[in-house]
Amino acid sequence: MAGDEETPPLLILHHLPNFNLSIFPLLRSKYTVLDPLDDPPHPSFQVLSKAARLMLCTGPTPVTAAVLDTYPSLQCVVGSSAGVNHFDLAACRRRRLRITCAGDSFSDDVADYAVGLAIDVLRRVSAADRFVRAGSWPVTKEYGLASKVSGKRVGIVGLGSIGSRVAKRFESFGCTIAYTSTKKKPNSPYTFHANAAVLASNADILVVCCALTDETRHLINTEVMAALGKSGIIVNVGRGALVDEKALVEMVVKGEIGGAGLDVFEREPHVPRELFALDNVVLSPHHAVLTPESLGAIEDLLLANIEAFFSNQPLRAEVQLQSDS
Amino acid sequence: MAGDEETPPLLILHHLPNFNLSIFPLLRSKYTVLDPLDDPPHPSFQVLSKAARLMLCTGPTPVTAAVLDTYPSLQCVVGSSAGVNHFDLAACRRRRLRITCAGDSFSDDVADYAVGLAIDVLRRVSAADRFVRAGSWPVTKEYGLASKVSGKRVGIVGLGSIGSRVAKRFESFGCTIAYTSTKKKPNSPYTFHANAAVLASNADILVVCCALTDETRHLINTEVMAALGKSGIIVNVGRGALVDEKALVEMVVKGEIGGAGLDVFEREPHVPRELFALDNVVLSPHHAVLTPESLGAIEDLLLANIEAFFSNQPLRAEVQLQSDS
Repeated sequence: MAGDEETPPLLILHHLPNFNLSIFPLLRSKYTVLDPLDDPPHPSFQVLSKAARLMLCTGPTPVTAAVLDTYPSLQCVVGSSAGVNHFDLAACRRRRLRITCAGDSFSDDVADYAVGLAIDVLRRVSAADRFVRAGSWPVTKEYGLASKVSGKRVGIVGLGSIGSRVAKRFESFGCTIAYTSTKKKPNSPYTFHANAAVLASNADILVVCCALTDETRHLINTEVMAALGKSGIIVNVGRGALVDEKALVEMVVKGEIGGAGLDVFEREPHVPRELFALDNVVLSPHHAVLTPESLGAIEDLLLANIEAFFSNQPLRAEVQLQSDS
Repeated sequence: MAGDEETPPLLILHHLPNFNLSIFPLLRSKYTVLDPLDDPPHPSFQVLSKAARLMLCTGPTPVTAAVLDTYPSLQCVVGSSAGVNHFDLAACRRRRLRITCAGDSFSDDVADYAVGLAIDVLRRVSAADRFVRAGSWPVTKEYGLASKVSGKRVGIVGLGSIGSRVAKRFESFGCTIAYTSTKKKPNSPYTFHANAAVLASNADILVVCCALTDETRHLINTEVMAALGKSGIIVNVGRGALVDEKALVEMVVKGEIGGAGLDVFEREPHVPRELFALDNVVLSPHHAVLTPESLGAIEDLLLANIEAFFSNQPLRAEVQLQSDS
């Protein structure tokens, strides 16, 4: 039935209750949308869901093996997220599913935000704003000095679509750039270091923007942070679990690292309260990707990929599952 | 007596009570320092001050005609500030004084800070930090979207030492750059607009970083802000009086401009309280220039200029008083 010329193709919407996209109404007009959260449910959900070939997965909604088992005809999952760590990739591989992601739709925004967090932590912009709004300026003329940004050594963990944009931006500040990655990029002008600890010992600003995998979980651990040292700062715009958060909190509280700009956390929306009292950290609710412009771009990409799938055209931003393993 | 080989040369320290530099002890060891704030005063202050040829003026300490009249032998004022609007320039010109300023010692820091304020306002970094610290994230998962930085149109008011550095940084974000200035810069690659209103009507981010003079006071007025419009933001890292602050407050409160990042204000340390409730403004206590690194650079420059003056060597960062008029 799916792909039939006369009835609309079947599309499974896989999303969290609070994660809707403005293209949902358009999708419902073009496709037979099967949304397990619909109340009342689609009258033929049980039958149609067995025949559906395509799923649209919004945001970080987990796609587990159990979810996949619900849809035995599934061939493709169109994802809206930059990362794919919410997918059970082994299960997707076994099912030979095709998967697409956000590609570089969000990369500029995340890179912009990473630079903003770094300037904010080093120059204490948010702390200054707090100082002024508290009415402290007329009372205490002395405001603590911050650190210079220009000329600092930036270490990038993961020189992909986001990391290379972070590098380009910091170069314009007269910063030197080094990186670590699964392997050396042959065409990169930047200094490669074999691991995060060596990178950190040669960096003032450590920007974490690699994918979260079993190998990269807690990549930024006590050893890496000790190598970064008292005047170094961490900026995390990747995933919370890339950093050992407990160790980070302890080290920033004790002054063993210089500060942190964190858009992501291990147990979102939970943020360790010990950080709330510190002026050398900047905390943000996982919104480095969120601008109206990038949401528009990703919605265009999702629509294009859904149409491409049903008309047997090439997909954009397809994840290479085989080379990932 | 000053310049004599055997007695230390005379040096007048002109500073506010709370504005000291770490080089003061070194200066007192090398020169006969005359500080009108000394208590007890130098025993020969009245006599020696008439003979002193050099003044070190720290920060924005006003150098009025009355101050200059106190020192009839004065030939040179070594200043530590990037701007010279705290000098009575007409009086300096009449006295044929030589004046030095901070030159570009602070330019990188101010440019860094301008970019940081722009990202902060557009992407709402400080507002996000406030949101997280207030414990709102677990309660209200929806956090308002901000605006993209990459690709925006940046309008720079004053393409000098700071403005050109701001331009270079924003170019790396894929932004387009235009500027206004007293005249078109023949070697600049950026689009010139004849005045601030035309620039503003072609800009999303208006960065104010020109010198404050009689001509530039309230240069950013209601007309310019109306041209900038509802989605445009103002970043002021120049001087507070470059912007009509009353008009700015009214327009940002009414949503007639999109936001503002302000490091400087008309009546510092007074900041209009109407701004304290807004998430689309970032407020900071005139500290765009303050990093330990730039303070070190400026102290080196001050020492070098004082030594150069007494040994008849060329001064660095000398202000051209004639061409300023």
